[in-house]
Amino acid sequence: MRMKPSGLAAGLLAILLSSTSAMSQSALPPPETTDPVTLGTMVGFPPPPDRQVVLGNVLQYPNARWAYHHMREVAPTKQVYRGGDAPADLNERAADLDAVRFSDGNGGEISIADWQRSTYTDALLVLHRGNIVYENYHVGMLPRQQHSLWSLSKSLVGLLTTLLIEEGAIDGDATVSQYVPELAGTAWGDATVQQTLDMTTAVDYKEDFRDPKSGIFQYLFAANLIPPPPDYPGPRRLYDYMGTVRGGSEHGAAFAYKTVDTEALGWVLRRASGQSLATLLEERIWSRIGAEADGYYLVDPIGTEIASIGFNATLRDLARFGEMLRNDGMHDGRAVIPASVVAEIRRGADRGKFKAAGQEARAGYSYHNQWWIPHDEDGSFEAKGLGGQQLHINPAAEMVIVKFSSHPVSETLFTHRVDRAAFAAIAAALGQ
Amino acid sequence: MRMKPSGLAAGLLAILLSSTSAMSQSALPPPETTDPVTLGTMVGFPPPPDRQVVLGNVLQYPNARWAYHHMREVAPTKQVYRGGDAPADLNERAADLDAVRFSDGNGGEISIADWQRSTYTDALLVLHRGNIVYENYHVGMLPRQQHSLWSLSKSLVGLLTTLLIEEGAIDGDATVSQYVPELAGTAWGDATVQQTLDMTTAVDYKEDFRDPKSGIFQYLFAANLIPPPPDYPGPRRLYDYMGTVRGGSEHGAAFAYKTVDTEALGWVLRRASGQSLATLLEERIWSRIGAEADGYYLVDPIGTEIASIGFNATLRDLARFGEMLRNDGMHDGRAVIPASVVAEIRRGADRGKFKAAGQEARAGYSYHNQWWIPHDEDGSFEAKGLGGQQLHINPAAEMVIVKFSSHPVSETLFTHRVDRAAFAAIAAALGQ
Repeated sequence: MRMKPSGLAAGLLAILLSSTSAMSQSALPPPETTDPVTLGTMVGFPPPPDRQVVLGNVLQYPNARWAYHHMREVAPTKQVYRGGDAPADLNERAADLDAVRFSDGNGGEISIADWQRSTYTDALLVLHRGNIVYENYHVGMLPRQQHSLWSLSKSLVGLLTTLLIEEGAIDGDATVSQYVPELAGTAWGDATVQQTLDMTTAVDYKEDFRDPKSGIFQYLFAANLIPPPPDYPGPRRLYDYMGTVRGGSEHGAAFAYKTVDTEALGWVLRRASGQSLATLLEERIWSRIGAEADGYYLVDPIGTEIASIGFNATLRDLARFGEMLRNDGMHDGRAVIPASVVAEIRRGADRGKFKAAGQEARAGYSYHNQWWIPHDEDGSFEAKGLGGQQLHINPAAEMVIVKFSSHPVSETLFTHRVDRAAFAAIAAALGQ
Repeated sequence: MRMKPSGLAAGLLAILLSSTSAMSQSALPPPETTDPVTLGTMVGFPPPPDRQVVLGNVLQYPNARWAYHHMREVAPTKQVYRGGDAPADLNERAADLDAVRFSDGNGGEISIADWQRSTYTDALLVLHRGNIVYENYHVGMLPRQQHSLWSLSKSLVGLLTTLLIEEGAIDGDATVSQYVPELAGTAWGDATVQQTLDMTTAVDYKEDFRDPKSGIFQYLFAANLIPPPPDYPGPRRLYDYMGTVRGGSEHGAAFAYKTVDTEALGWVLRRASGQSLATLLEERIWSRIGAEADGYYLVDPIGTEIASIGFNATLRDLARFGEMLRNDGMHDGRAVIPASVVAEIRRGADRGKFKAAGQEARAGYSYHNQWWIPHDEDGSFEAKGLGGQQLHINPAAEMVIVKFSSHPVSETLFTHRVDRAAFAAIAAALGQ
């Protein structure tokens, strides 16, 4: 029998406790104690109660290590079709990366194997010139399983929005509410699409997993990624929640990371294209990159794609997506995306505005059109998601890295320094 | 905002009302008034409230016409992988069936087009000697979309059980509780696997969609296919519900159609194989028939496949499955299933015991190993599901027909006579 929360307070308390334990950077569980295969997570008919992953505890630890590659088993999903063609070959040309060493960020040196272990990696793939030079799966994940991209999903929304701006279907300088009149009284009533893309909107919203009053929880309730307690009085649909979010002081002044900005863009995309986000992504991108599997979106109770954090894809297909971008939008001799769209993303945004967010590990970065731009000499660009989802595209090194993880700290900052050191060391090794 | 039932009574009342209206054979809605494309079902961002399909109203009409080919968008699902090989070719050799006429069961004659319209057909495919001679989709359904098989799922469980009996992993004469000790105190404590396969168990359970006290509603609540009202005191997991079902008078005496029998078999299969039902179906069948798409199971809140009514597949893949059985278990020169397993199913069961169910339209049938056996001169065998899901395999005519429907009466008896007339007329036309 399912635990029945006695009320809203109890429900939020339970979430707060689980989030706090998941977020605490002290006393992190040793990775080897969290492997769902060893733990027997979801093993048995039925699994023992303390090994059951249900919708309400997906974000809790160590359940997350199983849940992030089984999301469709706990929530409704919408297919993003791979298309009818044969998958594009990814030739396997293994490179010997065992000897590669890099800084662990704490004064030590580690190997690629150590890095995967210490950052709770579920799967890792390195493409060099379009060939698979390294591919590895952990914690029982299979190559054909889709992994939750969490906020890495934002970069797909950003790409589609950039594409529709390029085509003239969306005006970046128009307000969001010009496309979505329902948002007229909200934070996005007078915010432009471009400000929303760059997350320089001023929104009365906090994304803090440690604070149960933070907007992210109302968002998760509305997305039904955390089922709200029966007596929860707030919105139970994404669109309903978006209508309640109020503006802050001044749009365009500073970058602040906000999941809800992307949700507004998802709504703009649907209204501007007349298509669901799943159909738009499928027609414009996913069916045109030689994907070997469908992707899928998690959806809210009325089938609205969770634009900001809801896309799931296989390791290889996300690598194919990255490879298409590394090739300035080309796949198999055909332009999936105009080169100008990729160039616009890589251009980045004002680094001064990024500084305001205080992400010291990411000094020199900007956030542009829902992508993380390091402004490094390789011209790399990145997409990132909760728990350690990483897409790193390095044009100079002709390299694409995809890393799926389920680390016990939600922010990707948790592994930022060691990830960057790893990316650089792998690029150097491949360049020799 | 979601309608919040004020209590259990209100919740059941709402379901009863919707079921009654869906079940009434008088005043059925004209098919053309129920097309989700015309109605704009789930169209818009968001769709208008009266066009929203949510988990709680999937079985209501006309939502069912959209829902049955979009089940993954309202409920969690488990992948049944198609395997990594290229799909098996189904050559298209269109036969001219436009002139075929047959009895409509009411003294008139109709065409194949009329038949599809009047039986609320979503998709229809006819294979002759392994070639597609007819294929048609309606109500917006796409060839790549999986359709809910509802109780047609039972025949896959029956096939797997027959297979494991043939291999010696399950003893048909053993009691169900020998494999599932948790069922010792239930109807299946002293029922044999074979009695459960043939649905001659005596179970204190009623499958009547018109009666809100009928066991089928507790089952649907436990499967979370109808979300139970917040104050519902009954089981909210399939396994928990199965533990509450008590026995009736005498096992083995008479056939009575019971969804719960198949659920017990699903549990037996998992315990006997050590695999989830999805994995078992995938490894033994779905990845070995040249499927072009994954199938999927709907699952309960702890990931248990809804064995009895939860499988979803594309039209062509269910046809490939039927074609493999028509060929005595062979696909592409390889035995997927031993011929003896197919022969055992086709043998049928005691027709005298079937009579007890009073299905006059199916006089002469028996129900064996979860398949419907007409005992006709063509040696045909059939699988059927709620709302008009049909798999008809006719070895003598070298023909397989798959029909997906979403008719407003739950029982497949609704269209039994006209379906049989259509199958026979198509077989005759192909044989000329």
